[in-house]
Amino acid sequence: MYNQDALKKIVEKAISSLSYDTGSDRLTDPVKYVLSMGGKRLRPVLALMTCNIFSDKIDDAVIPAAGLEVFHNFTLVHDDIMDKADIRRNLPTVQSKWNVNQAILSGDVMAFIAIDCFLQSPPAIMHKVLRIFNRAAIDVCTGQQLDMDFEKSHIVSLDEYLVMIGLKTAALTAASARIGACFGGANDKNCSLAEEFGKNLGIAFQIQDDLLDLYGDTHVFGKALGGDIIANKKTFLFVKAMELAGNAQKKKLLELYTAGETDTSLKIKAVKSIYDELGIKTITENIAGEYVRSALSFLDLIEVVRERKAGMTEMINALLGRDY
Amino acid sequence: MYNQDALKKIVEKAISSLSYDTGSDRLTDPVKYVLSMGGKRLRPVLALMTCNIFSDKIDDAVIPAAGLEVFHNFTLVHDDIMDKADIRRNLPTVQSKWNVNQAILSGDVMAFIAIDCFLQSPPAIMHKVLRIFNRAAIDVCTGQQLDMDFEKSHIVSLDEYLVMIGLKTAALTAASARIGACFGGANDKNCSLAEEFGKNLGIAFQIQDDLLDLYGDTHVFGKALGGDIIANKKTFLFVKAMELAGNAQKKKLLELYTAGETDTSLKIKAVKSIYDELGIKTITENIAGEYVRSALSFLDLIEVVRERKAGMTEMINALLGRDY
Repeated sequence: MYNQDALKKIVEKAISSLSYDTGSDRLTDPVKYVLSMGGKRLRPVLALMTCNIFSDKIDDAVIPAAGLEVFHNFTLVHDDIMDKADIRRNLPTVQSKWNVNQAILSGDVMAFIAIDCFLQSPPAIMHKVLRIFNRAAIDVCTGQQLDMDFEKSHIVSLDEYLVMIGLKTAALTAASARIGACFGGANDKNCSLAEEFGKNLGIAFQIQDDLLDLYGDTHVFGKALGGDIIANKKTFLFVKAMELAGNAQKKKLLELYTAGETDTSLKIKAVKSIYDELGIKTITENIAGEYVRSALSFLDLIEVVRERKAGMTEMINALLGRDY
Repeated sequence: MYNQDALKKIVEKAISSLSYDTGSDRLTDPVKYVLSMGGKRLRPVLALMTCNIFSDKIDDAVIPAAGLEVFHNFTLVHDDIMDKADIRRNLPTVQSKWNVNQAILSGDVMAFIAIDCFLQSPPAIMHKVLRIFNRAAIDVCTGQQLDMDFEKSHIVSLDEYLVMIGLKTAALTAASARIGACFGGANDKNCSLAEEFGKNLGIAFQIQDDLLDLYGDTHVFGKALGGDIIANKKTFLFVKAMELAGNAQKKKLLELYTAGETDTSLKIKAVKSIYDELGIKTITENIAGEYVRSALSFLDLIEVVRERKAGMTEMINALLGRDY
């Protein structure tokens, strides 16, 4: 069986082997750039590892798995335009290195390069794989819409937040796991369990991402800390804090999130101090942990000998930085 | 057999029947808006009419044909951002009615709504149809890239221009005709002939579009005349004029196309007067005509009794406003 490192190498090789048969370097240079920026390659690794739970043969799944990463990066390129983000993974974003138009168009072509990867699936499962992927792609767009809507609403409930990341983040991790299971020849029941596993895992990762945006290590995280606070993002931390805050804290948080131009480091400090008063860091870690445990309970139900799932648990522990 | 009007009605009905199962009206309102703006529905009608050449049964092709229109409108929504266009078909563009971010995201979801339409093809031809479509989608992006590149280069040769519209416009009309032929059960040879037919027709339509931008009827055309000149677009008219112009005319054209902020109506008048000196209108009509005749020669080679192709010739005459 393959471990996380081995799968990541396979994914990197597959991504760099993709040929962009477009005839325009100007169009594909940003695509190559963004795909070479690195990252955890979570979605394709998750797909291949799920496939590997059911089957020793993962070859057919490699290019479609790369397609998941291409699609994910397409959403990042467009999200960075919408967020006016200049830096990602310590490097200039496409819209900042080139320009907005180039980022729109290079993003667009990535959507179809992703489809091209899925079209290389074996005929027997291609239709199924494409349907799973395409449903997730639409969900991811809806999630991004909800995230944009949240910028305009002062109050976002925890339920609304969970619906949003369920679509924006977890729909694709769910699809990745389900697609992987499909390639591994899993039956419908196991495919559904894999999907639920991927969904809960995606929610856990997003909550942890929200946490790392403020409490992470800048160097590892790849951008300055507190970016979500500067952008008034309704993250898990903010939503949970608003739920728990007393009237004075709530008023202060809202003021901080609705004030115009302010000293950003003061703003981050002020919001963080309320989070700290409320114990948001620990609460967030605990809730992320609950989603991981929920994911693992679905993994547990998958009807395959336990040993085949050990690599997955190992990967999750490594990515979350603690043992579950 | 179906004529153009009947097919357009079928297409309109199919487009308005599409359900956008996203759960966010904010995301899909711009999609509904742009798809209800009207237009010739050239690509789906072309697909259905090509299907109908080979088969009386066109039902299976209707939703995939609508997918071609959804994709085409996705490219328009994003092109309008890149061109900073406020008006299309006499109505505000998505980016002007909503905003750039909404136009990016609603455009994105249309790409996957289009894929969803193709996923409703019968299993036996779905893979083939998706491959044809996806190749065209990538080509359309490349064509848009070349068009953007042209904005920065003073001199664009006629060959470069033809490569650009071959990708930006004709790749999708070619795919539409080929996909239609597939649905009609045509053999490979006839599918390829249909594709060549669609390709030449697309080039002819684009050249005519370039012509109508300056010499058309504002009301019918749906936007103010001369927009391409204001935007310094390297249209067929400009490229051909630069090819035929004497040194003084060439110098003047380049000056007009590189000057910064100027009185737009004076600029249009000055460029048009050079075009008129060079007889560009007639030359353009003639070249568009050559591409139509080339398209018709491929239609002629399609191995189906002549009567089944009569509706296509009729539609082309109606769309081009003269008899071929």
